[in-house]
Order: sequence, then C-alpha cells, then structure tokens
Amino acid sequence: MPKTTSIIGQRVPSVDAPEKLTGNTKYVGDLKLPRMLYCKIKRSTLPHAKLLNIDTGKAEKLAGVKAIVTAMDTPNIRVGWFVKDETLFAHKKVRYIGEPIAAVAACDEDTAEAALELIDVEYEELPALFDPLEAMQDGAPKIHEDVENYICGIETEKYGNICFHSKMQKGDVDQGFNAADFVFEDTFNTQAVHQCYLEPQPVLTDIDFSGKITLWTSSCYLFPLREQISEALQIPMNKLRFKAMPVGGAFGGKQAYIPLGISLLLTQKSGLPVKLLLTRKEEFMTTNPRHPVMANIKTGVRKDGIILSREVKLTYDTGAFAQEGPGATYGGALGSCGAYNIPNIKVDSYCVYTNKQPFSAMRGYGSPQPYFAGESQIDMIAHQLGIDPVELRLKNCFEKNGAEMPTGQKVYSCGLKETLEVASTSVGPLEKERLEKDGRKVGRGVACIIMGCGLFGSGSNLIANDDGTYSLITGVIDAGQGSATTLTQIAAEELGVSIADISYIGGDTDISPWDFGTVGSRITRTTGEAVRRAAADLKQQLLELAGARLETRVEDLEISDKNVNVKGSPDKRISMQELSLAHIWEKGGSIIGRGSFFDKGGSIIKEQVAGYPARGRPSFQTCTIIAEVEVDTETGIVHVLKCTGIQDVGKCINPLALEGQIEGGIVMGVGYALTEGIQYKAGEVENPNLVDYKIPTALDVPDIRLILIEEPDPTGPFGAKGAGEACLVPVAPAIANAIYDAAGIRIKELPITPEKVRKALKELNK
Amino acid sequence: MPKTTSIIGQRVPSVDAPEKLTGNTKYVGDLKLPRMLYCKIKRSTLPHAKLLNIDTGKAEKLAGVKAIVTAMDTPNIRVGWFVKDETLFAHKKVRYIGEPIAAVAACDEDTAEAALELIDVEYEELPALFDPLEAMQDGAPKIHEDVENYICGIETEKYGNICFHSKMQKGDVDQGFNAADFVFEDTFNTQAVHQCYLEPQPVLTDIDFSGKITLWTSSCYLFPLREQISEALQIPMNKLRFKAMPVGGAFGGKQAYIPLGISLLLTQKSGLPVKLLLTRKEEFMTTNPRHPVMANIKTGVRKDGIILSREVKLTYDTGAFAQEGPGATYGGALGSCGAYNIPNIKVDSYCVYTNKQPFSAMRGYGSPQPYFAGESQIDMIAHQLGIDPVELRLKNCFEKNGAEMPTGQKVYSCGLKETLEVASTSVGPLEKERLEKDGRKVGRGVACIIMGCGLFGSGSNLIANDDGTYSLITGVIDAGQGSATTLTQIAAEELGVSIADISYIGGDTDISPWDFGTVGSRITRTTGEAVRRAAADLKQQLLELAGARLETRVEDLEISDKNVNVKGSPDKRISMQELSLAHIWEKGGSIIGRGSFFDKGGSIIKEQVAGYPARGRPSFQTCTIIAEVEVDTETGIVHVLKCTGIQDVGKCINPLALEGQIEGGIVMGVGYALTEGIQYKAGEVENPNLVDYKIPTALDVPDIRLILIEEPDPTGPFGAKGAGEACLVPVAPAIANAIYDAAGIRIKELPITPEKVRKALKELNK
Repeated sequence: MPKTTSIIGQRVPSVDAPEKLTGNTKYVGDLKLPRMLYCKIKRSTLPHAKLLNIDTGKAEKLAGVKAIVTAMDTPNIRVGWFVKDETLFAHKKVRYIGEPIAAVAACDEDTAEAALELIDVEYEELPALFDPLEAMQDGAPKIHEDVENYICGIETEKYGNICFHSKMQKGDVDQGFNAADFVFEDTFNTQAVHQCYLEPQPVLTDIDFSGKITLWTSSCYLFPLREQISEALQIPMNKLRFKAMPVGGAFGGKQAYIPLGISLLLTQKSGLPVKLLLTRKEEFMTTNPRHPVMANIKTGVRKDGIILSREVKLTYDTGAFAQEGPGATYGGALGSCGAYNIPNIKVDSYCVYTNKQPFSAMRGYGSPQPYFAGESQIDMIAHQLGIDPVELRLKNCFEKNGAEMPTGQKVYSCGLKETLEVASTSVGPLEKERLEKDGRKVGRGVACIIMGCGLFGSGSNLIANDDGTYSLITGVIDAGQGSATTLTQIAAEELGVSIADISYIGGDTDISPWDFGTVGSRITRTTGEAVRRAAADLKQQLLELAGARLETRVEDLEISDKNVNVKGSPDKRISMQELSLAHIWEKGGSIIGRGSFFDKGGSIIKEQVAGYPARGRPSFQTCTIIAEVEVDTETGIVHVLKCTGIQDVGKCINPLALEGQIEGGIVMGVGYALTEGIQYKAGEVENPNLVDYKIPTALDVPDIRLILIEEPDPTGPFGAKGAGEACLVPVAPAIANAIYDAAGIRIKELPITPEKVRKALKELNK
Repeated sequence: MPKTTSIIGQRVPSVDAPEKLTGNTKYVGDLKLPRMLYCKIKRSTLPHAKLLNIDTGKAEKLAGVKAIVTAMDTPNIRVGWFVKDETLFAHKKVRYIGEPIAAVAACDEDTAEAALELIDVEYEELPALFDPLEAMQDGAPKIHEDVENYICGIETEKYGNICFHSKMQKGDVDQGFNAADFVFEDTFNTQAVHQCYLEPQPVLTDIDFSGKITLWTSSCYLFPLREQISEALQIPMNKLRFKAMPVGGAFGGKQAYIPLGISLLLTQKSGLPVKLLLTRKEEFMTTNPRHPVMANIKTGVRKDGIILSREVKLTYDTGAFAQEGPGATYGGALGSCGAYNIPNIKVDSYCVYTNKQPFSAMRGYGSPQPYFAGESQIDMIAHQLGIDPVELRLKNCFEKNGAEMPTGQKVYSCGLKETLEVASTSVGPLEKERLEKDGRKVGRGVACIIMGCGLFGSGSNLIANDDGTYSLITGVIDAGQGSATTLTQIAAEELGVSIADISYIGGDTDISPWDFGTVGSRITRTTGEAVRRAAADLKQQLLELAGARLETRVEDLEISDKNVNVKGSPDKRISMQELSLAHIWEKGGSIIGRGSFFDKGGSIIKEQVAGYPARGRPSFQTCTIIAEVEVDTETGIVHVLKCTGIQDVGKCINPLALEGQIEGGIVMGVGYALTEGIQYKAGEVENPNLVDYKIPTALDVPDIRLILIEEPDPTGPFGAKGAGEACLVPVAPAIANAIYDAAGIRIKELPITPEKVRKALKELNK
C-alpha cells in the first residue's frame, strides 16, 4: 500500500450535511418548471388478467388533461437485465395489482387523479399465482408465455414460471452427508421488505425542440437506466440526459425504468415538463422490495464441528417480472454456503414468477435471506455440538487468501477470520443476572458474512483549474452515504492537495464518464479507484510539465506542499497551480486527468459460467455481528439492547461516513429481523403505509458499537473495500440466535413478531 | 487539408433555433429560485468626486430589504486584465456617473428601488475630464492616483491619465514622406457605440452551505470572469461555478465582472439567491461600449499609388477604467496600417482615462475606428491620384503569405488579395442614371480589412456513450452565432459519424476544460481545433481497441460507416459502438477524447514585446465590403442600397450560420456608419434608450450579397478561420467612400448624420 497522509482516515463531515439539516436541500419534488404538468398512473386492479380494452376517451375530454399514454404509445419492447420481460405499460395482459396501464399528465394532481377514474379498463380475469411453490409446479398457469430467458451459457432448458435457476456444485454432497456425524435439515422463510427510503420515487422530465429529454431523478443508477430507457423507447442515448438530484435514500431501490419512462413519454407527447411523484402507497404496492425466500438447508458436520457437506434449495419469489431477481438468486446461492470451507456443496436457487409486484434489488442483494437461514442453522449446530458459536465458525471459515467460493472463484483479502477473532474477545460476559427481571430474558447471538462487492466499472475525470483548485467529475451522486466526501478525499490524497481544493460534480450522464452506479457497495472501491487513477493521471501530467521546466527526469520529482520539486532539493520547485495555469496558456485547455477501473482479475472465467458475463472480480466485504436482546416472555416483544459490528473495510477513508453507514445497516437489519414485512392478501398489499408497515423508530435503535478491521484490498484505493451491505446481513440471524440464547426458542421465519415469540414460548413450555 | 465529407459545408440549421423562434428558450431572466431576492444598484450621480460617506442605515430598516453591500463588504482589490484599476464598488472616490456605490437585495424590485432612495451618499466634487486630449495634458487632474500600470515589458515611464501607450515603428517615416510624391494628413473621429444586445445583462447567483456559489449568466467569457471574480473577492475557483445560459446577444459586451460580482456579494451576505437584471438605461450609462477614437493619419504615396510611409496617432477614450482599452488600443494601432505593405511606419496609440463610463470590447475590438480613418484616407488618395480604389488597394496589399505586420509578425494564409480581385469583377457598373432622381445621388465605395482572430486557448472533451452516440463538452456557450452547431459538425466530421450522434454541452466552468470564451472571432478556429483534436484522440483510442481485436496494426485500420475496418477489407470490421461499449465493460469508464489548442506558432516573441504575453498566434480574417448608397441631397439622409461582402473564411463549416453572422456584422456596420452614437453632456448619457439611440431597423437593412473565399488556414479545423468581426469593420468606411462617390462630400466623423451631410453639401456648394 502507498503511504498515506492524514487525509485518508480523517473524520470529514459530509459536504451536504448542513444543507440537509437546515431543510435547504432541493430534491426533485422541489423543482418547478414553467407549464409543468403532473402525472398520475392508472394501475391494474387485478393480479392476472387479459387486457381487453382501455378506453381513455372520457378522460381525454376532461379539462386540464394534456396527455394520456398507454402501451399503444410505446414500441412495447420488453427490457430487463437478465430476462427481457417487462414493457413500460401492461401490454395485452396485466400480471400484478398496480401494474401501470395508462398515465395522465394534467395541469394539477387532482385533475390527473380525476382523469384516472374516467379511464375504463376491460379485463378478462385469469387464474393468479401468489405462491412460488405452486407457480413452479407443472401445469401451473403461465405468467409469461413467450419470454426468452437470459441464458448466460448455463441453462438451455425452457422454464415455465421459473425465470432463472442458479446451480452450484462442488464435490459430492451425498458422500459428505454419509461421512458426517450429524445432519441438520431446516426450512427458513423470509418476508418481503421494502427499502422504505424517506423520499418516494420522483422524476421530472422536460424536452426541447431537438427532442432532447432531460430527466431529473433521485435514482443513483443513471447509466444503466439510460441504457434501458434508450432500448425500451428507442431513443439514442445522446438524446437522454439524466441529472441526478439529491437522493432521499435508495438502498438498492429506485432502479426500475418504469416511473422514469412514463414521465418521459408524457413529456414527449405533451411537449411539456412533467413531474411524477409516487405516493407511499404506490411505493409499497408497485415498486421493488426485497424478495421473499424459502430456504431449505441441509448440512452435514463432524462431531468436532467441521462442516462436510451442504445441500441448499432456495426459492426466490420475484413477482411478476424478473428485474434483478436472477442476480439476487445467484447472489443468494453463493451466500447460502456462507464463508465456510465446505468440501461438498450442491445449491439449486430458483427465481420464480408470481402475480405479485416485482421484487428486485435491496441492500444485501439476495444475501440476507439465505444468511438468515445459514447463520441460524450454524447456531443450531453449535448448540447441538456444544461448541461455542464463534469457535465453530472459526473452525470452518475462509482464511485471508486463497479460499475458494462454490463457483471456484478465489477469495483474496478476506478479513472475516479477524472479525470473528475480535468477536470472541471484544465483548465481556453477558450479565444475565443483572438484566433479567420481570419475565424478561436476555441473550446474545452471533452471525457473520462474506459477500462480494465493488463490481462493474467506473470512470472519472479530474480537471485542474488555473488557481490550483480542481473539479472532480464522476457519474455517481452521493446517495446519502457520503460518497462525494469520500471520493474527494481519495482524489486529494492521491494528488497531494487538501479536500477544500476539490469540488465534486457527480451524477450527470452528459458530462461524466460511464459509471455503473451506487449499487452493490461499489462506490468507494470501484469509483474510488477510478478517481484515484484520474488523480494519478493528472499528477503524471503535472510532473511531466515540471520535468521540462526544471530540466529533471520525472522519476526524480516529487509532490510536496502543493509544489513539484526535485527530490532532495525542496527549493528547486514549481507550484502545481503554476503548472496548471501554464498548461492553459501553452496548450489551450485545462489539464484533465482520466481514470477508469474495472477489476478483471481472478477467476472471471468460472464466474462467467455461473451467469455473470462481465461483472468483474469483486472485492470481499465481511462482517461479524453480535446482538444482545431482551425477550419479554409475557408479551413476546423482543428488544435489541446492543449490537456490536465488527467489519473488515480494507481501509477506512472517512470514519464518520463509514460508521454512519454501518449503523444504518444495523438498524435496517433490526427492522428486517423484528418488525418489517409487506403483507399480501390475494396479491394485494394489505399494509401499504408507514403506520401498518413498521420500520424501526429511534426508540428501537440499539446501543451500537463498531470495530473496524483494515485488511487492505490491493485493488481498492488505498486498500479500501466496499462496506455498505455486509453490516446489514448478519443482523437478523444474530438476533434470532440471541433470542434462542435468551429464551430457548428458534424462530425460522422473519419477522420475529411478538405473536411468533409467544407461540414458540407456549410450545416450548408445553 | 484532410479530405472532408459532406458534413463540413452543410447548411445545418442551428439546434436552438426552434426554441428561440417559439419563445421557449429560458434565459437567465426566466429563472426563479425559491426565496430569490432582487438586486438594484445605487450609482454615482457625479462624474468625479470624493466619497465622504455612505449611509445605508435608513435603507436597512426598510421592510423587505435583506442585504445591502458597499465597498466596505469587499476586500477592495483592484482587478483588470491590463491595468489593475477597478474595484467592485466605488472606493474612496467615484470616477463616472453610474459607478456602483452600493447595492440592495430585497424581496422585490420595487422595494430594492425604494431602498436605493434611502441611501445617502455624501460627495466632495472634483474637477472632471471628458475630453481625452485634455486628460492627456500635463497638469490635468488625475483620475487614478496610484494604479500600477500593466507594463508588458514595453513601457516603464509613469503615466498620468494615459493608461496605455502602444508604440509601433518600422523603417523611417520621415525618409518615407520625403520620398513620397503626395502626403495626406487627416483627422477622423468616431463615436461611442453600444453593443445593444437585445438582452440586458442578467445574473442569478446562489450559494450553498459549503460557500459554493453558482452564477447563471449570459456572458460568454466564463473562465476569464471566474479568474477576475476569484481575484477580486478572494474566492477559490472551485467555489465558483459559472453556468452560461442562452445568450441574448453579447458582441463583445457582457465581459465585465461588476454585475456578477455585485449579485454574488449579496448572495454571500444574505445566504439567498439574488437576481440582478440591468435596465436598458443602466446598459447605456454604465456598461462598456466601443471606444470613441480620434485618429490622425499621415500617409505618403508615390504617384503610381505605392504607399511609402505612414504616421498615425490614435487616442482611445477608455472612460474611467482601462478594462479592454489597452488591448483595443494595441489592436487599433495594428489596424491603423491596414493590410498594406508600408515600409515606413510609426504609430502611437494612446488609451486615456476620462470621467465617462468605461469603454471596452466590442465586435472589431479597436479596429473599426482606425479602419474608418485609414480606409477613408485610402479612398481620398485613390481619387486624388486618379487610380481605381480597388486597384490602389491591390497595388499595396499583403500577399497570401509572408507579409509582415508592423509588429514583425508574419502574415500567413491571408485571402485579402483574393477578396479585392473578386471585388473588382463581382459587381457590374453602378446604374447612376437609372437610380438618381428627385435630388437623390447614388454612389459606390469600397473598404477592406485584415485582422487577427482566434487567439488564446481552448480545451474540449468528447465522451463516447455505450450506444455509439457522443457527448461533446467545451467551455463555450453558443452566443447566437451557431457555434454549438459548428463545433458539433467539426466533431462529427473528424470522428466519421453524423451530427445527430453528438450532443453539445457547453458553458459550465465546473465540467469543462478551460476556454478563453466567445470573443475575438475565436470559437470556430480555436475551440473548433480543440474539438477536432478531442475527436481525433477518441478516434485513436477506438482504432487501438479495434487493432487489438482485429489483430491489425492501427495504421492499417480506417473508419467508415461508423465501423473500424481493416483497410481494403471492409468486412473485417467492428462497429464504433461495440468498441465504446467494450471499453466500459473492460476498462470501467467511457472512452474520453481530450483536445487542446493554443497556436504557439509564428513570431510570438515579437508580439510579446508589443504587450501581449501569451495570446498566441492569430489566424487572419480578411474582408472587402462594397457599399452602394443613396444620398438625399435635400434631407441629407443616407440610405444604404446594397452591400456586397467578400470574405476569406478559410473553410466554411456551416454556410447558414456563417452567412447570418456576416449579414449581422454588415448591419451593425450600417448602424455604426449612419445612426448610432452615445451622446454625452458633462459625462452623462443623454440618450440612454432605444428611441433616442438609433440602431438600424429592418427597413435600414440593405440588400446584402455575400461571396466567400476559402483560403485554408493550416492551423484551423479543416482550414477554417474566424469570421465574426472582419465583416463589420470595413462597412463604415465603405459607406463614407460611397457617399463621397455619390455626392462629392467627405465626412470624417461618425455617425454620418443627415445634419453632417447637409452641412457638407452646403460647404461643397459654397
């Protein structure tokens, strides 16, 4: 690792924090353009039906209505990253309650809403499927008749409602089970949870006379969405400008092209700006929560705790469209084996269509579900074998380097073992006597994770101003996690200037190099490395300019205190500012540093076979969570008292931002474990609001303690890895394990509600 | 020259034309931000006075007033490109009527206006100077007591009110006059004229909590203004983001930092957005028109028409501050010798302070004034010698290459001679008999010019999108002349794609490489060449990527039909789109083409001596104008019937834009010749409105005929030169010469009003 100065590791407050705290941040919802229209969406009221007729005639006559669009206004091109199955509007049939059928742009929201009532839709109802196990059965009604599955070279068979099947195999599981002293077989279920970003999805679209469309969005997935909209609506990319606005949370959501495309289409048709703000109800009913999963796990262990064999079947309910389902299904397949050296593995992970809203990416991307299962079962094994749960994990877990994932991919720079070692020493004995009173039981549980992150590519430009300040450009906007600050630190460190010297400009597709976006814990590692390379490229140009002036070879120069000087002769120097200015007055334009990063290392070929053609080699984020809970045996209410997060982050660039992100992840994990869950009745969401859907409040936040491990990633900037997701995943199993420790009950279904706890306690005491 | 396809030379309509024609273009004036304040400026009512006290107390108490600023709120740093003499607000004294003393930001314009009335200013009046000849005299009151002149290595003497003295000398003028058969000595006077852009100067400023300021402006001089404001207000450049908005005309104006700085300061003080819209009256009284000049020209000629010697004294009235005065004074000195090979030359060109508004850059930049003088006198010489005026010019004018300017700078690629040759054959005989009736006389006059253009530097970035479209970024906004379209054509041509494949993004200092701005006829030649180089750089990267894939050396590849193919094997190819996409999925970011241009060729060293440290080598724009006028001998009214413009443009990129620009220049020349002029009375503008200040109306526009010569400039993109200014300069002398031809009267003072014509006719007929 290169020697770093004090910039890396500094606790730097987010540049946008004062704006947000004072309510001055302008979100998409705050934008107004002259003659702007408001959009409302007519949605399917049935989960599965043929669309016989859509009559917009009456609605069109309503005063104030400026444009109405349906599937008839689109080329009806199906798009999708894994399965090309989703059109902008329902076409010929509807597949879930809430699917867009038509959209209205009107002079105000009330008029648009009134127009929706005037649109008549004639359906022919079809039998609907809500249970993926039913949907997988032969002879089940087909939700998609004619989609071409995205094959990725692994499967050529034709599926019914299975839109993706991820298979992994290593060794011989039966042999493993035969050799085992104990075989554990359990089924776990997880629920659908919503990202619950504070800001429902907004979009504002406008068009000029050349047909160029600008989209102001709070998505942080700009370039892929540009690609999808370009494909779906057949608009060249240079006619689409995505401008990211401040993001009121995303957590993997806000990646669907549907709301953006609808607003865009209305702008094209009306020639006017159109604003679409989804309601919270629409968010819960129609956007893209985390998949509900059923996980069957069978694990064979020797009595000394060594895991010999594991067989897994995962069933991901992806709802009516695939979206990120196949990716999550693959990620979950990988995650179902945990961070353990298991010689014999067989995983079948299914992504299945049902007539529910499409489930898609959310923080953890397919991993929270199998990790709840796997890390719960490991705890059960530990208790059965009488081995300390941390000790059992240490016996089986990956070493720092060289272990192999079930795909054959080599693990490198993995600090998981260190997090477990720290876990075994960092918390004292749990003072059960002191804490347990009035029927309350306390317990402690542990869980851990390894997951890939920082995939795909990024680019960055760094422009040198004439006064020795700099403008840093990337394709990503700060989604709230502090990436603008972190990326600025990386550029400042590499260049040898201060943070204040650099302005960060992010999230505008017309001005920045391509970036995959703020997903998969990738900004610090991947965009960060592109930024570091842009700074290195700029530095090299400065050194070359200085070399010519100082008549010295570039190798004999160094940068210190914002000057380029001859090594060993600090007085033989030129300021960086002078060099930047000289470039302008000699060459014409500013010095531009260019940087790109895409990790092509490792066993990429094997990964390709498993279904990812070119996502690159991941960095590995690992985390161990220790949860301490209090179970009220009378009410069944579980309260998380304390959570210790021990995470390997490679190198911590900005502790302030990183700690905030890990704390947030832990709180999301608490909600996942205990209270959150979308409830469906015949495909309809029963609790589409924040009263009936319960996210943790400030009172539910446990006492959080963080310990950061820095096992440097040689490919990340200054050794940094991604960190945004690992912290969330082990929280639910750690809590479940703590509940077992407290009350002796094992809950295998999330969320762990008071009802389930009371029921389990009742059964335990039978 | 490289072979070009049909893109270069295509008549491409401006991309923004439909927007403008339908009134949909959003100018700065159309922008509104939440809680936006309105600014009004308290201005000096005296031309020269000590400022004893400024009392803003009463104004501050007025309800709705949010901030008031004066010199006390600034560091009072004097800035200026040539002479550092101008603070943001009057400091200690005022130097012209209209100089800013204070500014108010209030909830609406009326309140701001009312607050101005409540600000009490106490003056001690000083003797004022309005005539530069008086101001130059020893013992004249000093307008600036203590400024350090910008020396440029040419003058070390301390000036009084002379802020710059440009000297040029070659040969021995006295010897030349002795050898001459005739010596002509004349004095010519030109008036102050305003740029009269339709959109008075606007600015909107906003600030965030990090102190970063955004300025929405219609100036097209972004980067230099950023530098000046950064210096004057001590704000780092990365805290200043200039966003150019559509420009309602500029013509060299809108280059002063004052309005921008005032709005910015009020935004800093109030923490709120502030909008400042100058009124037309403020424009006429306080912004920066073209300098009034007195020109004494003495020319010695042989009887065969060969010019042997010229001595010139020019006096530029720069008003209270230097601004671009020294540059114009230098440009005028150069221009006073015309495009003629004169062996003996002596020029003294003075830039003199007076107590008038500061005069500065306007289309032609110092040249229209001495060219009116020089080209009028050449006409007098031709008539005196009985030589055809075109013939006389051809005898003396610069050849295509190798001639020397008075500075010693070598002229290259100069098509002036060709324009004169065409002039002598392109118009038939003037049908005086047919046209002259009812006391109206008709006549024809000619004038020509050579002037440098395309100086300073530019940079450009070109980004390859994943679908084979491109985003072209430069620092310049289209000021109405069509540069966005022209630059797009250049990129498309170099890259081998169509215009529709490229989006143009201009005029944002945070996202683009440095550019000197839309001044001095420099965009097509200089920014254009930077754009061409960016496209070439991108193309090279595509070829290298293709070479690796096709296993072929880059030299053996070519681009055709948006593919890279092996020369001679059109089927062995990869599409450019595929390569752009591959870069993203292999390297991480988009391919970025970088281009910079600054012409360092030619006798730059000699130019440096003359006062320009690093403006680079110019391209040469040349033009011959033939004007045909009708003089009403009764009323004195002159009507321009026809104007033929013959201009060498190097290579015409977009005839539609270029013709529009030349036509506009000719019309501005007509106004300069006949009707326009700011009238002063004791330093106060008497006609600060568009009723009393008369610009040409549609009815005043002559029948215009254009003939383009294409003598390629080897340094410009596809041979192109600048073209925006040369067309204007010869119009006034051509009209004056035509009036002489029609009526036998020689008017040596602009504008040539009916009064002057009648007076001259009266004297002629005495």
